[in-house]
Amino acid sequence: MITNDTICAISTAPGIGGIAVIRISGKDAVLITERVYKPVRKERLLTDQKPYTLSYGNIIDEKGMIIDEVMVARFVAPHSFTGEDTIEISCHGSLYIQQQIIALLIRNGCRSALPGEFTQRAFVNGKMDLSQAEAVADLIASTSASAHRLALNQMRGGFSNELAKLRTQLLDFASLIELELDFSEEEVEFADRSKLIDLALHIKMVICKLADSFKVGNAIKNGIPTAIIGETNAGKSTLLNCLLHEDRALVSDIHGTTRDVIEDTTVLQGITFRFIDTAGIRDTQDKIESMGIERTFRKLDQAVIILWMIDATGMNENIIRSAGRIIQHCEGKTLFVLLNKTDKLTGQECEEKRELVESLIPLKHSILFISAKTNQGIDYLENQLVTAASLPETGTDDVIVTNARHYEALLHAQEAISRVLDGLHSGISGDFLAQDIRECMHYLGEITGQISTDEILGNIFSKFCIGK
Amino acid sequence: MITNDTICAISTAPGIGGIAVIRISGKDAVLITERVYKPVRKERLLTDQKPYTLSYGNIIDEKGMIIDEVMVARFVAPHSFTGEDTIEISCHGSLYIQQQIIALLIRNGCRSALPGEFTQRAFVNGKMDLSQAEAVADLIASTSASAHRLALNQMRGGFSNELAKLRTQLLDFASLIELELDFSEEEVEFADRSKLIDLALHIKMVICKLADSFKVGNAIKNGIPTAIIGETNAGKSTLLNCLLHEDRALVSDIHGTTRDVIEDTTVLQGITFRFIDTAGIRDTQDKIESMGIERTFRKLDQAVIILWMIDATGMNENIIRSAGRIIQHCEGKTLFVLLNKTDKLTGQECEEKRELVESLIPLKHSILFISAKTNQGIDYLENQLVTAASLPETGTDDVIVTNARHYEALLHAQEAISRVLDGLHSGISGDFLAQDIRECMHYLGEITGQISTDEILGNIFSKFCIGK
Repeated sequence: MITNDTICAISTAPGIGGIAVIRISGKDAVLITERVYKPVRKERLLTDQKPYTLSYGNIIDEKGMIIDEVMVARFVAPHSFTGEDTIEISCHGSLYIQQQIIALLIRNGCRSALPGEFTQRAFVNGKMDLSQAEAVADLIASTSASAHRLALNQMRGGFSNELAKLRTQLLDFASLIELELDFSEEEVEFADRSKLIDLALHIKMVICKLADSFKVGNAIKNGIPTAIIGETNAGKSTLLNCLLHEDRALVSDIHGTTRDVIEDTTVLQGITFRFIDTAGIRDTQDKIESMGIERTFRKLDQAVIILWMIDATGMNENIIRSAGRIIQHCEGKTLFVLLNKTDKLTGQECEEKRELVESLIPLKHSILFISAKTNQGIDYLENQLVTAASLPETGTDDVIVTNARHYEALLHAQEAISRVLDGLHSGISGDFLAQDIRECMHYLGEITGQISTDEILGNIFSKFCIGK
Repeated sequence: MITNDTICAISTAPGIGGIAVIRISGKDAVLITERVYKPVRKERLLTDQKPYTLSYGNIIDEKGMIIDEVMVARFVAPHSFTGEDTIEISCHGSLYIQQQIIALLIRNGCRSALPGEFTQRAFVNGKMDLSQAEAVADLIASTSASAHRLALNQMRGGFSNELAKLRTQLLDFASLIELELDFSEEEVEFADRSKLIDLALHIKMVICKLADSFKVGNAIKNGIPTAIIGETNAGKSTLLNCLLHEDRALVSDIHGTTRDVIEDTTVLQGITFRFIDTAGIRDTQDKIESMGIERTFRKLDQAVIILWMIDATGMNENIIRSAGRIIQHCEGKTLFVLLNKTDKLTGQECEEKRELVESLIPLKHSILFISAKTNQGIDYLENQLVTAASLPETGTDDVIVTNARHYEALLHAQEAISRVLDGLHSGISGDFLAQDIRECMHYLGEITGQISTDEILGNIFSKFCIGK
């Protein structure tokens, strides 16, 4: 990876605004900016400008034409976001001006920055580790309070600190074992095996806890998978619209984020729910329709919460027949049975429907009377969803894994440390032990970026927005 | 208008970016920011921070939760864009963070800024005159090189200087006349009438020149009105698509600009063309269809350039019949006759068509052979359009009126100064003269904002984007 050149990009959101900020980073940042920038106070050269101060002046092209009046901020290596000399130009937010200034900078020696390249440089220059760099993208993409908090926490190093501690302990561990190997002919044992077992157990416990936290972290970051199931006329899409009411505008406003696909998600009281669309379920002999229903059941298996919608005005034999198969897929999940259209029923009729449902479903469940059409019972449902989500309160110090790449590495590390423990119990030779310990360290290092390949880095940073 | 409170807004483009900038302006800008911002170097209070320097720290909410790591820039009245104490917060560009910081600032005493309110404050505080403030919005909305240059020139005061000179001259003029009125019983004449006539003539000339420049200025800002006329099957829409090819993406990218309606415009070699859609023309007895065609002819009258499209493969009696009426509306305009679909004709046939057109059209015109479908001849047409536009090269010092409000005021000023001249020639009494002079000054003052009403200001600034 080349970091020897100087890069530039528009760092603010694409489009027209009052102002836009163009960022330039690299060893020639000041030199290149000086070629196109003239401070209003002529005596003040940019090279003489004190770091972390602002200068007011004009961007001027090769023909002497003023492109814009701007403010220029100067950051000096290594005390900048990237760790390199950095210039930030605040210009007027017209598309034309933004394009002209970028083109002018490129003609004067800058290269157009790749997505995430500023953050990548921050990583390469040791300003942050890889998991912190990844958190920058998560932070920018976060749309809920809890996702934001976890990303910010991770960016500030919460995660890295935990991993750094583990790696140090493993290194101590490995060093002692390898010391033994140097003296292998003498059959010494520097590393007290029972203490090593304690240590490995502790490390395994921490890794397991981190890996386990991914379930919560993933739910916070990507939303709690919530399936809405039921017959096609049960009112599923009306319910979905009710639940998505607040967030639709927000979602459609998002462009250029790091997420490829935007699913139907909504934020309720700071918690993101991701709704899984399912096909209507009914008992059928039709082969193709059966396949569709099979797919619905597989989607059910991904869900943590299931909203089983039943048209209370039309509860019939068909529902009773398909109930058995739905129930099979609800075990271990939070199940809400939503009796819809109950605005059309009497209290007496509601009670009868409730009793019917109770008799049908042997699993733990809650029954809610709603009317998706009139919004009746929806507030209560939302509160129940938030309670059911039962995400732990995440404080500033919580260490929670939100990233699938980290999770995968943790699972590998977990396997390796388990082999270490097995080896210790069965008394295998030190060189095998050391190999497994090194493997565990390798996977932990992949998370923080102490171990990284261009492919891993390329994968991570290509998902960033340009200008960050 | 209240300017006693402190306002805040996101000043960068709406949406997600690497970073976003939040601007706070007003007497409590520092005080309010201090409530939510903690510098990383604790000993450094924001109030102690030197003006025009950057501080690095955290935005923290009432519960002590960190919302983001940010850079804070401090500007001190009157040396800021608005002329007030101003704080700019650079935060991560997530929607969530942007919204949270704005909400936190509002809870701590800021008011959400109205569209254009920062620029309005700059005007109220005497940082710029009204025509300069209006140029800020034009600058942000500009999409072509020439529109950008005129807006920047106007923002930098080119226009205002010219008007200031005129006003000073008028004031001298008026003072002398009014001095005479004080001594009216003595029949003195302080103001040398022949010199006054010279001065009024000069002023009238300058005002006329400015008013005349609006034709060019408006063409640069809103595009040169170019009508495409012809029968419905002549290939008008195919041609329009050819001509708009580059710019479509740009236009659809624009949101939140100051222009209410985005017309079909394209930028060719730095010049904006605005294409006027017209209904197909044919000779008809149908009353309703005739009305549509009448409307087409009225639109023709707005155009500066007319592209008359003829399907060369189907030139028939109908075209020959309608030619007369089209020609009536082409006088004084630049007329291109585009013989379309000529890829299907032999050279011999083309020559025949050319001769037919020459015999039909007595006006000055150019004939171009094109094929809108295969793009043949389109590059040449574009070059011809640019040549026909014949906009004067606008340099940095050119004074060109681009704003319809200014144009209207200039026309009024022109009337008033003409009355002054008439009065001088017919020797009317000084008090009538003085009144006309004051009226001329009034209209010039409307442009610079020396004369303004809340209604005028409201009208102007409501078209700005929020955050500027």
